[in-house]
Amino acid sequence: MMQEKTQQWIDISVPLYTGMVHWPDNPPCGITQTMSIDAGDGCNLSHLSMGVHTGTHMDAPLHFIQGGKSIDTLPLEATIGSARVLEINDPQAVRVAELEPYAIQAGERILFKTRNSAGAWKSDVFVEDFVYISHEAAQYLAEKQIQTVGVDYLSVGGYRIDGPETHRALLGAGIWVIEGLNLSTVQTGSYELICLPLKMMGAEGAPARAILRALS
Amino acid sequence: MMQEKTQQWIDISVPLYTGMVHWPDNPPCGITQTMSIDAGDGCNLSHLSMGVHTGTHMDAPLHFIQGGKSIDTLPLEATIGSARVLEINDPQAVRVAELEPYAIQAGERILFKTRNSAGAWKSDVFVEDFVYISHEAAQYLAEKQIQTVGVDYLSVGGYRIDGPETHRALLGAGIWVIEGLNLSTVQTGSYELICLPLKMMGAEGAPARAILRALS
Repeated sequence: MMQEKTQQWIDISVPLYTGMVHWPDNPPCGITQTMSIDAGDGCNLSHLSMGVHTGTHMDAPLHFIQGGKSIDTLPLEATIGSARVLEINDPQAVRVAELEPYAIQAGERILFKTRNSAGAWKSDVFVEDFVYISHEAAQYLAEKQIQTVGVDYLSVGGYRIDGPETHRALLGAGIWVIEGLNLSTVQTGSYELICLPLKMMGAEGAPARAILRALS
Repeated sequence: MMQEKTQQWIDISVPLYTGMVHWPDNPPCGITQTMSIDAGDGCNLSHLSMGVHTGTHMDAPLHFIQGGKSIDTLPLEATIGSARVLEINDPQAVRVAELEPYAIQAGERILFKTRNSAGAWKSDVFVEDFVYISHEAAQYLAEKQIQTVGVDYLSVGGYRIDGPETHRALLGAGIWVIEGLNLSTVQTGSYELICLPLKMMGAEGAPARAILRALS
């Protein structure tokens, strides 16, 4: 039998529920009961309706690049393996100057912890001034050839600023994107990441569950 | 950095798509595009609508037991760790006689590979005579106090036989249930399992992604 590790897994996914926050022009999330033991059915059964870029989810290149790869083609090694959590102090955006000291390497999986994690998720109303990745920083990450990037609110790009630009810079470079993480209980450092999106055929993204474990 | 293992992950999840098979009285799965670059939108964006017991998914006790635990309370160790894949030769059901030689231990994660894996998933029409876990075998697994059980079609119980009975025996014993796996490419043996369901608050189940890696 496999040796069970002693470090605990930390859930960095946000909960899904009816009425939860979503990007303004995206469909809402609804979880409804279609069968109920209380109502005399044999079991309880739920139906899920959601835009796939709500909550913790992944973007595939096809989200912004016509003809790009869909989420079912994700290589599992892109979201399973070592990852670095970097804490961003800039209250507006991830910028190149704050990234440079980290000596980011090709093939890395990088997750950005910003003030979003402890703040923005408390609201069921969309928070417009969340911390995003500036277009320039996205180009920097693309040049560094990282494998995967994760952010702690609904988009790598900002609201009404650097939205398409940041997405295209990352997705066009073949970087896999995880959005909607909550890193509030996670310290800066190196971790083992597991992020598994639903296997939605031909789709430009999918809801996901993501967890971290400290490297011992 | 973490040492990257050499064994490859094997995806044992089934693909999600519009028109895929579902349990007869469950809602269908639909993936629809709500934004399209071809149609002039800034990006491609999909909406997902499905009963949560379609495709690869998990059942929480609440599915059949009123007041039981919901899927968001799943302890991650129940679906992350060593697991045994047992091949079942009985063409109708998992039965006690076939299980006894395997010396099943308390706390184990057990996945049953049956003729469903190579057969039933080929059809978008529901297959009524899939191999299920007999009520007696479910009681046996409950007595053995296994932690998690996985099956390779849509239900641990049969169609019109041992449905509620098998579910109640397993879920009532606190066993976490994974349904809708495809084990056709997996040999009998010991593996590392990762199965992560969506974090649906208060729900009796959730869609999931599941993968295996041979223990080296």
